[in-house]
Amino acid sequence: MRPVVRTSAAMIAAAFVLVGAAGSRAQDADVRGAVEAANRAWIAAFLRGDSQGIGNLYTAGAQAFPPQGDIVRGREAIARMWQAVIDSGVKGVTLTTLEVEAAGDIACEVGTYRLTGDGGTVLDAGKYVVVWKKEDGAWKLHRDIWNSSVPSAKG
Amino acid sequence: MRPVVRTSAAMIAAAFVLVGAAGSRAQDADVRGAVEAANRAWIAAFLRGDSQGIGNLYTAGAQAFPPQGDIVRGREAIARMWQAVIDSGVKGVTLTTLEVEAAGDIACEVGTYRLTGDGGTVLDAGKYVVVWKKEDGAWKLHRDIWNSSVPSAKG
Repeated sequence: MRPVVRTSAAMIAAAFVLVGAAGSRAQDADVRGAVEAANRAWIAAFLRGDSQGIGNLYTAGAQAFPPQGDIVRGREAIARMWQAVIDSGVKGVTLTTLEVEAAGDIACEVGTYRLTGDGGTVLDAGKYVVVWKKEDGAWKLHRDIWNSSVPSAKG
Repeated sequence: MRPVVRTSAAMIAAAFVLVGAAGSRAQDADVRGAVEAANRAWIAAFLRGDSQGIGNLYTAGAQAFPPQGDIVRGREAIARMWQAVIDSGVKGVTLTTLEVEAAGDIACEVGTYRLTGDGGTVLDAGKYVVVWKKEDGAWKLHRDIWNSSVPSAKG
């Protein structure tokens, strides 16, 4: 008896889809690791008051979207925006990544944040979406938008 | 004289990069057209009070991130969220796409919005980031987050 070896175009297509899906999931996990490492660097820079260090984690053409403000364009302007937050008395930042979906050189992160002041009082808590982009071989924040989950507090 | 025909690995690589970049820009433009068409359908559904029609423009696993609220997960919950906005007296919606960047089956849109009430009074104006995903052959809203640009108004 000879084994029946038949390959249809549909089988080949199905194999490509499976390989593609597995590749995509593996990429999601790889990118998530890079994103979480960059978030740790973001927090470390914030805690030492280094807004330029935060800015360097963004792409050259990055945009940030602060609630109750206009779109902030470019690394330097974004660094100034975070300097104002540092100067406002925020002492602690928590960023919790909920998911990362990647495709090519773009990745979408969903997460939650918490800002605390003196004595650990919660100043604000909410959620964010960051679109990350691979630039010069590193994943960087490209579009950064968030809003508060606290009812009738500042957004 | 014979023409000098030399092809280096670097030249081939450069050609691939150029073709890739051109392909990416073409994809951005194609996806932008699909995104703007879907936004027109979104507004049409909103204006006729059809929150289920809005929901159908989102992926099955979509998430929305309303200011001053928790993450809203899934098409049905998102439809209920928009029904509440329709019921609150919003009469007009403007969505202005500023840019679309696509990679594979994911695309990132940045835009601005404006909500108006009776007599065209502006109720809120702000910006949004929507991550679109191609599902069942159509580009659908996958992650939808926004916040107000109005100082000290609701986010």
